[in-house]
Amino acid sequence: MKRSEIIISGSGGQGVVLGGIILAEAAAIYDDLNATHNQSYGPEARGGASKSEVIISDKTIHFPEIEHPDILVALTQEAARKYGGAVKSRGIMIVDAGVEIDEALGSSIRVYRLPIAKTATEVVGKEMTINMVTLGALVAITGIVSEQALEKAALARVPEGTEELNKKALAEGSTLAGSHKHRA
Amino acid sequence: MKRSEIIISGSGGQGVVLGGIILAEAAAIYDDLNATHNQSYGPEARGGASKSEVIISDKTIHFPEIEHPDILVALTQEAARKYGGAVKSRGIMIVDAGVEIDEALGSSIRVYRLPIAKTATEVVGKEMTINMVTLGALVAITGIVSEQALEKAALARVPEGTEELNKKALAEGSTLAGSHKHRA
Repeated sequence: MKRSEIIISGSGGQGVVLGGIILAEAAAIYDDLNATHNQSYGPEARGGASKSEVIISDKTIHFPEIEHPDILVALTQEAARKYGGAVKSRGIMIVDAGVEIDEALGSSIRVYRLPIAKTATEVVGKEMTINMVTLGALVAITGIVSEQALEKAALARVPEGTEELNKKALAEGSTLAGSHKHRA
Repeated sequence: MKRSEIIISGSGGQGVVLGGIILAEAAAIYDDLNATHNQSYGPEARGGASKSEVIISDKTIHFPEIEHPDILVALTQEAARKYGGAVKSRGIMIVDAGVEIDEALGSSIRVYRLPIAKTATEVVGKEMTINMVTLGALVAITGIVSEQALEKAALARVPEGTEELNKKALAEGSTLAGSHKHRA
């Protein structure tokens, strides 16, 4: 592993910012890698869009900006439309069920369309765990951090008393990824 | 206001990361400004140090990196030692009680030494509100965002049920700043 650039994008209330922080902390605090985490808030933040940028590397990160993500998570159609075109050739795109991808795009990158929001709401039972289901799936698909590091980082950041719920959400995300791994 | 660069630094568990996010969101979501928020995690994160970088501007932020902060908060001696020298001439440094500042530094910047941790523990009654006491003081001293925006952004991010506690912490931070405003 050299350097991986990840964007997690969606709408406010989906926990995108916290999701990015947990991923960066999993890498840097628990997996002995380096990481940066960035949010830029402009007018689109006031419109309800949310985006979290994470860079993970085994070397010092001198240039902490993302131009072409290796991995893009898009939880909304708007996010997919806005950032989909920037994904690196042979990169990975993880989108929620129902999010449409430009056909041309689909031929140069690997697309995983997973029922993330539905799993949070119906299987885990709490809509607000959508970021944890996302992280569980992301890590199962990409192996960008270890599952142990992810769980430790998540449990250090979630509100007291919600640990079990969030562990379940991570596990369900991982299962979701496993069952969809071979059908883009 | 053009562009202000702020570093909040301390140790893990002081809520430095969340503090930075709340400040950026106060500016961008509630005060109609633009903001970026960044963490870089390297080996020092594994040693327990924590740093949050925020840039606030009324223009689009093209270069989201901080070289010389206008405002530095240092909650630990280590943080003051590490970042103090980078503060812009005539910049502002807010440090916790007991944190020593290099004398040469004190002559070119304004230093506010406030009993932040003590106020969180003894006045608010919860050590973990240190980030909110910090933000209350920071905003009272610098006016970088409005107090209303700060409160809204904070209440949107703190765990349910802790709203009153955190409002009190913001108010105590503001009071602390007021009473120390004219003695550096």
